Amino acid sequence: MAESWSFLDTFEANFRPLVVIELAKGTKEETIKWLTKRIVDKKANGGAQLLVKPLAMENGDENIYLVGASHLRLLLGAEAVGLVKECNDNSMRTFTYSSRKTFKDFADDNHNFLTMAECQYIIKHELENLRAKDEKMIPGYPQAKLYPGKSIVRRLLTSGILVQIFPLHDREELKKLRHSWYGRVKVGYQPLDEIRCYFGETIALYFGFLEYFTFALIPMAVIGIPYYVFAWEDYDKYVMFATFNLLWSTVILEVWKRICAIMTYHWGTLLMKRQFEEPRPGFHGVLGINPVTGREEPVYSSIKRQLRIYLVSLPFVCLCLYFSLYVMMIYFDLEQWALDYHEENESTFSSLMLFVPSIIYAVVIEIMNRIYRYAAEFLTSWENHRLESSYQNHLILKVLVFNFLNCFASLFYIAFVLFDMKLLRQSLATLLITSQILNQFAESLLPYWLQKRHKKRMKKRMCSLKTDTDLSLVEQVNLEKEMGTYFGTFDDYLELFLQFGYVSLFSCVYPLAAVFAVLNNITEIYSDALKMCRVYKRPFAEPTANIGVWQLAFETMSVISVVTNCILIGMSPQVNALFPDSKMDLILIVALVEHLLLAIKFIMAFVIPDKPRDIQMKLAKLEFESLEALKQQ
Amino acid sequence: MAESWSFLDTFEANFRPLVVIELAKGTKEETIKWLTKRIVDKKANGGAQLLVKPLAMENGDENIYLVGASHLRLLLGAEAVGLVKECNDNSMRTFTYSSRKTFKDFADDNHNFLTMAECQYIIKHELENLRAKDEKMIPGYPQAKLYPGKSIVRRLLTSGILVQIFPLHDREELKKLRHSWYGRVKVGYQPLDEIRCYFGETIALYFGFLEYFTFALIPMAVIGIPYYVFAWEDYDKYVMFATFNLLWSTVILEVWKRICAIMTYHWGTLLMKRQFEEPRPGFHGVLGINPVTGREEPVYSSIKRQLRIYLVSLPFVCLCLYFSLYVMMIYFDLEQWALDYHEENESTFSSLMLFVPSIIYAVVIEIMNRIYRYAAEFLTSWENHRLESSYQNHLILKVLVFNFLNCFASLFYIAFVLFDMKLLRQSLATLLITSQILNQFAESLLPYWLQKRHKKRMKKRMCSLKTDTDLSLVEQVNLEKEMGTYFGTFDDYLELFLQFGYVSLFSCVYPLAAVFAVLNNITEIYSDALKMCRVYKRPFAEPTANIGVWQLAFETMSVISVVTNCILIGMSPQVNALFPDSKMDLILIVALVEHLLLAIKFIMAFVIPDKPRDIQMKLAKLEFESLEALKQQ
Repeated sequence: MAESWSFLDTFEANFRPLVVIELAKGTKEETIKWLTKRIVDKKANGGAQLLVKPLAMENGDENIYLVGASHLRLLLGAEAVGLVKECNDNSMRTFTYSSRKTFKDFADDNHNFLTMAECQYIIKHELENLRAKDEKMIPGYPQAKLYPGKSIVRRLLTSGILVQIFPLHDREELKKLRHSWYGRVKVGYQPLDEIRCYFGETIALYFGFLEYFTFALIPMAVIGIPYYVFAWEDYDKYVMFATFNLLWSTVILEVWKRICAIMTYHWGTLLMKRQFEEPRPGFHGVLGINPVTGREEPVYSSIKRQLRIYLVSLPFVCLCLYFSLYVMMIYFDLEQWALDYHEENESTFSSLMLFVPSIIYAVVIEIMNRIYRYAAEFLTSWENHRLESSYQNHLILKVLVFNFLNCFASLFYIAFVLFDMKLLRQSLATLLITSQILNQFAESLLPYWLQKRHKKRMKKRMCSLKTDTDLSLVEQVNLEKEMGTYFGTFDDYLELFLQFGYVSLFSCVYPLAAVFAVLNNITEIYSDALKMCRVYKRPFAEPTANIGVWQLAFETMSVISVVTNCILIGMSPQVNALFPDSKMDLILIVALVEHLLLAIKFIMAFVIPDKPRDIQMKLAKLEFESLEALKQQ
Repeated sequence: MAESWSFLDTFEANFRPLVVIELAKGTKEETIKWLTKRIVDKKANGGAQLLVKPLAMENGDENIYLVGASHLRLLLGAEAVGLVKECNDNSMRTFTYSSRKTFKDFADDNHNFLTMAECQYIIKHELENLRAKDEKMIPGYPQAKLYPGKSIVRRLLTSGILVQIFPLHDREELKKLRHSWYGRVKVGYQPLDEIRCYFGETIALYFGFLEYFTFALIPMAVIGIPYYVFAWEDYDKYVMFATFNLLWSTVILEVWKRICAIMTYHWGTLLMKRQFEEPRPGFHGVLGINPVTGREEPVYSSIKRQLRIYLVSLPFVCLCLYFSLYVMMIYFDLEQWALDYHEENESTFSSLMLFVPSIIYAVVIEIMNRIYRYAAEFLTSWENHRLESSYQNHLILKVLVFNFLNCFASLFYIAFVLFDMKLLRQSLATLLITSQILNQFAESLLPYWLQKRHKKRMKKRMCSLKTDTDLSLVEQVNLEKEMGTYFGTFDDYLELFLQFGYVSLFSCVYPLAAVFAVLNNITEIYSDALKMCRVYKRPFAEPTANIGVWQLAFETMSVISVVTNCILIGMSPQVNALFPDSKMDLILIVALVEHLLLAIKFIMAFVIPDKPRDIQMKLAKLEFESLEALKQQ
């Protein structure tokens, strides 16, 4: 490989800007000089060997830089990040520069061998791996300390010198993608491969899951419709419907793992070796030796972190959960009070008053959610996790539990304390439908409208200023840097997770929930697509092989739903009528059925292989080959 | 590596016999010649490059061969099987010949760098990897077909030309091991590292688990004793005891994973790469191409196998389970009949008659167990699994389910149908104690006694025949080849599994079970040690990183025991007395507590990491190093 690096030239005629670096206004000249030198410098000198060009802004500021790389540099970078691509024999292999000729569609002049998202991912990786050598601080900023091996870009970000790094949109590609994604009226599958090429695997996997989940809900919806149309109230039909739902939800979650494996195999991320994870930007501690890498970096005692988690975060979360339950109880009191008031003095005013508690409760929940989210982020950050992934997992767990309680506590209360099935059905429908409508509005349509207005204003200002040939790029960068940042798929998955809860937890009470979920998800696909393409900055691609902790969350929900559905059926008057004398027998039978269903679910999850046979074979083949290669060595 | 192979000489002055090959009597000369040539032949010519020496028997037969290898050959073999050894810096690394100097205790003249068990494992691996080249059949046996790449030894075994291959005992080492294992009266830990050196990881792990499990039962036993001594019958004490047991069993199973990881890390098997598994000897099919290796080998359709499993094996197992239940019902009828008879005409004969049903039932169960075991082996073999591991898993599952039912069905019936707690306690004690005594007798003491008698006779015959210098070796081989073969740890784990069932399933009814289990296990350690050292042929070492499917079996048992204990406590008269009016409340509370306990168990299993932090760090360090090495390449 050493010789290939020397071929590299930091200058290339057709510079293609891929990533934008925005520095703080008024960043010192020496800092800029030092940074660009490090970015451009040869790999052997500890540089990133990329290309940098300042972007001339209308106001003369020079705080925005475009980063690109030569074709050869990108190929070597692809090897460094461990990209997996398809070979000529249709198998997936880790790309290496020396074996480049064996890869499908590879040609020395084919600059589309790597997708733009991959190129941007490589550049991001190279920039983040730009490490301090003997610098003790960032030149010009003595307070921004460096130590050998510290990622320069991360220190620049934490000390506020670097405002943001983001990849540029490719207007042509985006237009094509938009057309095939949501531009056509024709109904069809989403172009997941194209989405993956443009936005990366994490986002493509979210849309893949959204689509799969929508299809998976259709059988539930189809079976649910006659219950509504014919107003079936026979308990045996409900039992059948609930049993189907419970087993079906296990099947769909297991099958998803298989489909996910197929997709990520073809995208190459299933085989991609996990890179060694760097400490997250916010991580702090005393300088020590990392026992794994032997590098000098901040070290923070794991016991201290455990203490913070179990002695502060856990009690705080419990307190919040208690408070949320308390608020719920107040809501039910208010509701009762409004009902009493309405009954006493019936008037238009009093009937309007009936809605007041619900509205207040909805607003309070929304406020509580936001405050809690803020607190959870603060606490998880204070727990000082070394890895971004463990930070994310702790944050997701905290937010998940709280949202679960907020959304479902009132329903549980209505179902298992008040025993009011009619109210349950009504509340379920109201909550499901309003939350869906509000979500879609707040999440996509409103930002889209704001974005559009902003864009128009921007364009006007631009046109009045200059008529340069470079205008389009300057304009594009200026537009995109002001766009909102997409903070990952967390909120999107959370929405689906809560929806899954509405559909499965009380499925035997409100079979129509699946129908609404399907309808919502069809529009959700479009509004999320709109959001990705129009509202937000392009996010960096994140290679991923599965939906991670969400798989576990969905599986847990499907286990809880077995319990709730069994209890609901056991409580229904029709079933109770079958056991007029002995409530005990009824409860025992319900408990027995519940245990049986749980056992079947676990056995099913165990028996269905997580990866389809042909993927298993392909993985085994690769493993066998690497073992053989090792022997040959 | 090529140069190192050429250094190898197939002749070495001090030939140390390691493995014995016993051919069928009257094996053709040309076959023997061909086989020994293949074993001795250079690696480049497709041989195994080992040393072979015929053993001159007293009757002039030449059907026993001793296999050894030069020191260098063994080191190269250690690299080929991927052995992991300790380095000078105390880290564990995969051994390679080129980096041999960095390993602890390595010296060119230190022939103890590899343990004898490791040397024998290497020779076994090399022999099994001796593959046919262009031979179409085994010379002299046209019916024993070969195809390129077929393991010669496996074909020889299946066609009966090769009677057995087994490793020789090392009398000196064995004596030392026996002394430190069970020779001293002093109580202490077992010498697990020495056991591992002599018998390999699988057996050492079994003894490690047995010891750990015994220690883990001690708290249960200690808490259980006062219940017996003071005849405590208060329900609250029982609830406390049961709750402790249920949570404790989760803790011990989780902690075992950690201890297992620590042990196997230091033994090197935690890091050992899984080798590509060959088809098991009994596997048959039409000749095709293995999609993973690309080699020609028998291929059998996976769908056919699935059909056999689900359409034949599964119904058969269900039928057997039903039959076993049926026999149990007959037993209860007989028991009732004997009781009635005794009440009608009370006499010595009638009181003796009371024992008859139990004896008949015990005998019938034993017979059924044996027939079923035979049938299960036949069926699993007929299912034609390609891999030994999948064969073993299917066999274990079949035998496990049947044994579980046979052992516990009567107890379940007594507990949950007859509601007779006194009888339950009595049956539990009888079953537990008699099965323990019988097992230890049938499994170790009886074979030991038979073996001793046989040995004496052998010795006598030997002495009367010759007084050669080589006598000791001939005598040893002759003795050992007649010893029984140890068929793996299956029966030993099964015994522990059933014991765990007796202890945990009904722990709140019979707190003394743990005491008996502890006492049994202490003697079990000794009798199993005796069995391994004195009764059986030395088994080949099997590298393994965990106890495999047994972990799952024990965990499942501990989940089932939550359910049984909750029901038992719910049924106890003391608890029932607390809810005189409403049995419904009682059942609901029991169900709630059960679900809570299950949830706590799952959360605990999730929260306790499977590997201790320092092992995780060491693994991460190795992974990081290999990633870095890959980058340097």
